[in-house]
Amino acid sequence: MSGEDKLLRDILRGLSGRANLLVGPGDDCAVVRSGRRKILLKTDCVVEDVHFLRSHDPARVGWKALCRPLSDIAAMGGVPEFALVTILSPTDVPPGYWKTFYRGLGRAADRFGVAVAGGEISRQPRGIAVSVAVAGVMDGVRPVLRSGGRPGDVLFVTGVLGGSIRGHHLDFIPRLEEGRWLARNVRPHAMMDLSDGLGADLPRLARASGCGFRVDCDRLPVRPGGGCPLTDGEDYELLIAVPPRRADRLPADWPFPRTRLTRIGALDASGEFPADWPGGWDHFSEAADG
Amino acid sequence: MSGEDKLLRDILRGLSGRANLLVGPGDDCAVVRSGRRKILLKTDCVVEDVHFLRSHDPARVGWKALCRPLSDIAAMGGVPEFALVTILSPTDVPPGYWKTFYRGLGRAADRFGVAVAGGEISRQPRGIAVSVAVAGVMDGVRPVLRSGGRPGDVLFVTGVLGGSIRGHHLDFIPRLEEGRWLARNVRPHAMMDLSDGLGADLPRLARASGCGFRVDCDRLPVRPGGGCPLTDGEDYELLIAVPPRRADRLPADWPFPRTRLTRIGALDASGEFPADWPGGWDHFSEAADG
Repeated sequence: MSGEDKLLRDILRGLSGRANLLVGPGDDCAVVRSGRRKILLKTDCVVEDVHFLRSHDPARVGWKALCRPLSDIAAMGGVPEFALVTILSPTDVPPGYWKTFYRGLGRAADRFGVAVAGGEISRQPRGIAVSVAVAGVMDGVRPVLRSGGRPGDVLFVTGVLGGSIRGHHLDFIPRLEEGRWLARNVRPHAMMDLSDGLGADLPRLARASGCGFRVDCDRLPVRPGGGCPLTDGEDYELLIAVPPRRADRLPADWPFPRTRLTRIGALDASGEFPADWPGGWDHFSEAADG
Repeated sequence: MSGEDKLLRDILRGLSGRANLLVGPGDDCAVVRSGRRKILLKTDCVVEDVHFLRSHDPARVGWKALCRPLSDIAAMGGVPEFALVTILSPTDVPPGYWKTFYRGLGRAADRFGVAVAGGEISRQPRGIAVSVAVAGVMDGVRPVLRSGGRPGDVLFVTGVLGGSIRGHHLDFIPRLEEGRWLARNVRPHAMMDLSDGLGADLPRLARASGCGFRVDCDRLPVRPGGGCPLTDGEDYELLIAVPPRRADRLPADWPFPRTRLTRIGALDASGEFPADWPGGWDHFSEAADG
């Protein structure tokens, strides 16, 4: 278990006792009951010098800031509705930076049908950071969790992996259409979005499902131009566990010609991970291990 | 209009076009429609060296991090249900800091009936910041906005103002019970929470309501030990605009013997603010003005 996962698990343990909290900390999104509806809630952030540089186009940073939590909504099979934005900014960042940032964020909001319901700006002495919280709904389908995988389930990934740092991480399209279609038509046993790299994220899905896994690394779809599909991270693609009978038909049924779908391996009953499996990116490993 | 208000207005303009967004940016909380329910959404943050110091007890910082957005839920007359927490932390902050932080945040969550539905941790190179998003409901009453005030409405504040920096800002009780009772029993025309000081916040309520105001500054309730009730900020009390007929009975009806309620002035039709009215705390005035 990575340092970040372990720290989060330790500090969140025991904090979530409400009956209408259907899915709490640990999955891509929280699922809560509100009246007769299930609401998805997710918060995520972009931090200067971690997720972007000051020299990047602020419009692309704004796009990324909203699309990161949208990718988590996609991984549940959900539909995003509202976003709240918290900006932390040194006072020497000119207002024009934030207007451009919001133009990019607004483009993503328009494209994916999200209303920006509120925003806060606070001074921060050093460095820019933006946190975005998103609320969504399930639109009549059941949320797809990380924990539902079973031995024998076939593993797929969307798109191509690795090399995101060359630009994809600022321009990616959250897989909302694909996630929704999968939840409605395929009912995967488990699904999650790949933000820290398959190397870190697949063990999370397998562990939550109580399974081991095997992956045919020669099959992994790598971004043109190269990169490591296991450890680079920031792919924002879907990792999907599909029961074997349904898996055989899936490539033929797949209605998204512009989004590649690749069968990469399977969950198994071993409870073990390949011995040479690499870790992925762990934002917090230093603090948690040290 | 303050720099922070103006920048937020500029960048949020045109971003919020969805029909089920009932109250968008500019009030204490957003109000959205989800099925037949009204949901309140709010995000806020605490930033090191702005809202707290590294030397402060992390449990008190955790309490404050959750109670800041709860104060906004209170100002709508709402009931908070769920919170999402985004932590930005340098890697040299020991895990024990965050465990203590979450103990304090968890105490506030328990006390005010909030379930912590999710959390994220990201590395940040310099300085701690925590963003908390909260979802709540209205429980059968109408949300009380900033914009409903009318000329003649009597202005009240809860508690005492000023001097928060001596400790209140880390230990305050969000006025959830009071806000809910007011929304149900008094139906104020307008309400907001005082986070930047009456000097900055009252003009916001008056402007949103299209009114001027007058305040009897000698009547302002000042914290024992002193402080400026207009400009110190971080009071986290309620500012309430009540129609005159209802206002006369309110002090006698007030069922919270431990929470002071003070009549401080009135809205008027002048559209003007007192000439000597001070500004309050504006996190962003430098960047917006310069």
